[in-house]
Amino acid sequence: MFQRKRKNKPASLRKAAALLKKADNILILTHVRPDGDTLGSAFALMYALEGMGKRVCVACDSKITKKYLFLTGSEDLYPRFKPDFVVTVDIASLGLLGNSLREYSDCIDLAIDHHPTNTMFARWNLIMDKSSAAGVIIFRLLQQMKVPFTNKITDAIYVAISTDTGCFRYSNTDAETLRIAAALLENGARMEYLNQILFELVSPSHVTLQGLALKTLHYFGNGKIAIIRVTRDLIAKAKAADDDIDNITNLARNISGVEVGLLLRETAPNEYKISARSNGDVDVSHICSLFGGGGHKKASGCMLKGEINEVEGRLVTAILNEYFSEEDNRVENAFTSGDSTDF
Amino acid sequence: MFQRKRKNKPASLRKAAALLKKADNILILTHVRPDGDTLGSAFALMYALEGMGKRVCVACDSKITKKYLFLTGSEDLYPRFKPDFVVTVDIASLGLLGNSLREYSDCIDLAIDHHPTNTMFARWNLIMDKSSAAGVIIFRLLQQMKVPFTNKITDAIYVAISTDTGCFRYSNTDAETLRIAAALLENGARMEYLNQILFELVSPSHVTLQGLALKTLHYFGNGKIAIIRVTRDLIAKAKAADDDIDNITNLARNISGVEVGLLLRETAPNEYKISARSNGDVDVSHICSLFGGGGHKKASGCMLKGEINEVEGRLVTAILNEYFSEEDNRVENAFTSGDSTDF
Repeated sequence: MFQRKRKNKPASLRKAAALLKKADNILILTHVRPDGDTLGSAFALMYALEGMGKRVCVACDSKITKKYLFLTGSEDLYPRFKPDFVVTVDIASLGLLGNSLREYSDCIDLAIDHHPTNTMFARWNLIMDKSSAAGVIIFRLLQQMKVPFTNKITDAIYVAISTDTGCFRYSNTDAETLRIAAALLENGARMEYLNQILFELVSPSHVTLQGLALKTLHYFGNGKIAIIRVTRDLIAKAKAADDDIDNITNLARNISGVEVGLLLRETAPNEYKISARSNGDVDVSHICSLFGGGGHKKASGCMLKGEINEVEGRLVTAILNEYFSEEDNRVENAFTSGDSTDF
Repeated sequence: MFQRKRKNKPASLRKAAALLKKADNILILTHVRPDGDTLGSAFALMYALEGMGKRVCVACDSKITKKYLFLTGSEDLYPRFKPDFVVTVDIASLGLLGNSLREYSDCIDLAIDHHPTNTMFARWNLIMDKSSAAGVIIFRLLQQMKVPFTNKITDAIYVAISTDTGCFRYSNTDAETLRIAAALLENGARMEYLNQILFELVSPSHVTLQGLALKTLHYFGNGKIAIIRVTRDLIAKAKAADDDIDNITNLARNISGVEVGLLLRETAPNEYKISARSNGDVDVSHICSLFGGGGHKKASGCMLKGEINEVEGRLVTAILNEYFSEEDNRVENAFTSGDSTDF
């Protein structure tokens, strides 16, 4: 459908600014299952380019979740015209475009991204892999373009950088991010309002699920391993969405004294998606690799089939055997006695 | 015991710096039930003055909670010598010294504080009431004194400012705070480590209490009022401390669609401490004032006696009558029908 435009060159901020200044009828693509960084970056760029009199449209393969509707205005973001210039934001590889936007794969003019794994799939690629968020690059780019920072733009960039840094809590938060947040605040970003939407408000179904999930919390290995079970029955009871379940993943790990937190989520009868989180010395990617999964040292996952107690037993045994001393290594005891807290 | 030194003069950063430079045998006082701001400010100032070769001691009337032991090293902070110079940090009025430090009331040389309500009780008073935290003033003061920002100092100031701004989420977070955080990070503050201790780790008893408390969550007024009940029985079951209960106060308010969140905490048989939190237009200080309590528009409290359903009924009726339209105003219905979610 579109002309192939492969060049795969790196672009500087200056080059990217020059390309955008010349362009019109610009389509900005965001990644599937969009987060605040891809959406905030896209909308900030859109407002900036619209302010220069250009026709701009943001598109996304997935429906926008409730949380971000205040930003996007609609849950569907379709391409509304045939573009002359295509930009991607926060997209590391073409697979993240999603089915409905795959047709643009070969005609992306500019990719703006901060992932070290970016595959340089565009004609020009502005990749700043030290940046905490794509929003940081957008901020620098709009500075380069001498765009006035309107309230809409500062709000959108704030959404981007606060989401990707967990509101400045994650380890990727750096001095540059904090200084940009300061500049956004001075230029009208509604931090308090946005923080409430992004980080405080939870859905009733999330709260219900959390209550039910906490009832299943139990410990092994003298409190070093904490496990939460989310069965299909429980998800149905809470009328919970995927988002609600994601938010429960870190709960067990964040209990003081816990070194490994596990979430066992039933995806089909006797089929479990395991999310493993580590606080310290346990490499959960190693544990998950024993069961055909993987990930990072502190956050990994795998799939397991079987009866839930049996599945849990295999995981706990592996963790105890691989990482904990003999005194903690009383698995049978742990399974049968008061080590498991239930109320 | 000590000489009266009343002058009650305002002090500039320069004056405060000059006073501290001249002083030795310095006692730094923190407030009762200490938080991260008073402790972080005190320890940062102590490290700075110790670095100048002075004898310094931090004291607190209350035992230090587990959360801050990494900073203080001990749960008891007693005055260890007869001071020649007494400083208070983050203390708005003398009542906050607590019983064991009251003897110093008349001989405070320098008060460093950011509360607009500060009573100017010291000989010299460095009050910067636009600052988000006392830690911000300490940062400025150490800059003024040209103190090298060691890792211990940057960590302590980070504790102070991140605690008082809710890790940069509260409305008092300003551009200055964010820029200071950036400077602290560049000077070695261990943000990731500190954030985990301060904002992520929860106690097993807190998690247990949360699970039990969420089971009591129910709604009135078409989901606009959410209520959580924490009975003495439930506190005993979870072996919960006051800290654990405090953390539950905002839970109900943060559910989307909820305008008023109430926590009913049983303090004695048939005696309830009510914490009311508002998201929007409901002024909970008005509601609480109807029952002899008060506070702020968005956060207030009162005490009520009676059977729990009756106590709750009085509160809900008051909120519905004062604030919500007739269509939501079906209290009897709400009490008897499916409006109350229980699982």
